[in-house]
Amino acid sequence: MAQGVFTFSPGPAVLPLPVLEQVKREVVALEGIGISPLEMSHRSAWFAQVLEQATENLRRLLRIPENYTVLFLQGGARLQFSMVPMNLLRGSKLPADYILTGSWGKKAVEEARREGQAHVAYDGQEHNYSRVPSAEELQLSPQAAYVHFTSNETIQGVQFHQWPEGNGPLVCDASSDFLSRPMPVERFGLIYACAQKNAGPAGVTVVILRNDLLERVPPGLHSMLDYRQHAKAGSLLNTAPVFACWVLMLVTRWLLEEIGSLEEMHRRNQAKAQLLYEVLDQYPDFYIGHAQPQSRSLMNVTFRLPSEELTREFLAQADSQGLKELKGHRSVGGVRASLYNAQPLEGVERLREFMLQFVKRHAPSRC
Amino acid sequence: MAQGVFTFSPGPAVLPLPVLEQVKREVVALEGIGISPLEMSHRSAWFAQVLEQATENLRRLLRIPENYTVLFLQGGARLQFSMVPMNLLRGSKLPADYILTGSWGKKAVEEARREGQAHVAYDGQEHNYSRVPSAEELQLSPQAAYVHFTSNETIQGVQFHQWPEGNGPLVCDASSDFLSRPMPVERFGLIYACAQKNAGPAGVTVVILRNDLLERVPPGLHSMLDYRQHAKAGSLLNTAPVFACWVLMLVTRWLLEEIGSLEEMHRRNQAKAQLLYEVLDQYPDFYIGHAQPQSRSLMNVTFRLPSEELTREFLAQADSQGLKELKGHRSVGGVRASLYNAQPLEGVERLREFMLQFVKRHAPSRC
Repeated sequence: MAQGVFTFSPGPAVLPLPVLEQVKREVVALEGIGISPLEMSHRSAWFAQVLEQATENLRRLLRIPENYTVLFLQGGARLQFSMVPMNLLRGSKLPADYILTGSWGKKAVEEARREGQAHVAYDGQEHNYSRVPSAEELQLSPQAAYVHFTSNETIQGVQFHQWPEGNGPLVCDASSDFLSRPMPVERFGLIYACAQKNAGPAGVTVVILRNDLLERVPPGLHSMLDYRQHAKAGSLLNTAPVFACWVLMLVTRWLLEEIGSLEEMHRRNQAKAQLLYEVLDQYPDFYIGHAQPQSRSLMNVTFRLPSEELTREFLAQADSQGLKELKGHRSVGGVRASLYNAQPLEGVERLREFMLQFVKRHAPSRC
Repeated sequence: MAQGVFTFSPGPAVLPLPVLEQVKREVVALEGIGISPLEMSHRSAWFAQVLEQATENLRRLLRIPENYTVLFLQGGARLQFSMVPMNLLRGSKLPADYILTGSWGKKAVEEARREGQAHVAYDGQEHNYSRVPSAEELQLSPQAAYVHFTSNETIQGVQFHQWPEGNGPLVCDASSDFLSRPMPVERFGLIYACAQKNAGPAGVTVVILRNDLLERVPPGLHSMLDYRQHAKAGSLLNTAPVFACWVLMLVTRWLLEEIGSLEEMHRRNQAKAQLLYEVLDQYPDFYIGHAQPQSRSLMNVTFRLPSEELTREFLAQADSQGLKELKGHRSVGGVRASLYNAQPLEGVERLREFMLQFVKRHAPSRC
């Protein structure tokens, strides 16, 4: 980004400036190679090293156990909504449990229904997807092909802060908080995440799966939809999105070398989100938060203003001050500030300051 | 690419230098916007314009009729191997005819068999996929759900120079010669092409389809595999590979503004390929071409040397002189020089010169 401009886009989202600067330096010709990363073959030694390094970085950051495979695929989380049930539910006598805490989980279960029995173990619709369920609220199957949940609902700004449990391998759509905090990978059967929030640009999706699940993949799947084939080919069943994988590798390297660990990243993300939630708590009738406090997302801070008109004015003024892409998802409206890993503290402070000034100008009686 | 370095990679492949230079200028912050194209939302006004411009450029270059839809998808041609039969063969009483002229066609028909009756109307295996068939050689079904062929087989270097005809909508995998020459789109039902040869970087795939085919799509397909849903959503069913689409738009703009037309591009591609095929014709016992003359590809010039040892030496020496990625595909060996649109004439001249010197040094008696 240019100086003084901050994007709060929910994804594709802000990337670390040192990564963008390295991309700029090398995008015409990689140092020592002379060819652009946009021109490099997916079968080149250079790209083999990119994939290996990206895998190694993810393994270190997330402490991924040896018996898990890391894949780099295309099609976004949305294709995973289909691949998960194709590979793990098709032909199974067991149901798959789905925990629905927002828009993406709802879309995921729709695809699962095409492949088998998809059981909704929890649906937060009645409270408008404003919180995650307690363990007692889950209506789990006694035995499930898998238990699916969405760790962070980007649209509603609702996040699990304790990992749920179920009666089958836990499958997590971690798209919008992947790499924002530690995850106990050993407790999951499969984790998937599109890159364009915390891990890189749009166009590559990470899948981390426990190897024994590959044995459950039914025969006859189309090659590109079959985890076994991707695993066997080391994510090179077809031409990988080379450039996107390279940027993902650079982002994971930045996490290791500049931030240090996901524990530290989590601490910083907590501090950034806190700056905005404090304002919501201070002016609860003006900045009306969507998520209930215990389920507030550290990634997407969602709120409404008292009127549509004020919301529009808020967005327009913010934009004119270089605070971009704050509009809430078209399905829920309001304001959404996405504070992914690469969101600089300065951007959040600028937004906080703007929010405080805006409320003073428009609702002085509340201040 | 750096000066003096040329990549003959079969894809991801060489891109126009002015495009790479624009990417370099704007990759940290788009001019007038201040946000990186790697950070831009797929729902932004900027990206809406990118997609619109890319579509418009393709429509102008290929003279795509109004009753065709242009889609930008993920998953490469390889996912199209599956999506074509899922959408157009599943549930059909008719067979789909497949014309096999090389490795990619063979892979395409394997996926089609999962969805219905895939009839091989021609298989060039007996002559090791060294040419395309004549019209008389095709064993077409009287009526076909569609007729599939691969306009250019990248691995074998075999290209159709006259479009085949069949008894059903013509479906073309144009991955490796898309935008290298004019195509009479009105004669096709569906054309698909991954971008990483002539159209952009890896990670985006173009599908051009005649609208009436959408009516044949069976119910119950997974959303991401359903052409209707992608068409309805204007290629924004999920997060598009924003950056790859932007580069594709820049490449198509370069074609329009720098080259002028596909007729002119074709002329230049013919001239470039001719420079190498002349050498093959001059030394047919030393540079042993794979493709028969009438089926020679303008995109991928494939040949062997008299021994494995000479091939290795050829590749090593070429590489040391900045002529990169000339190794033939691992399934056929030998040498492959890919001469896509953005391959500069200078690169081809350098390779021709190298070939002439190499044969003089290693087989002076033949000169």
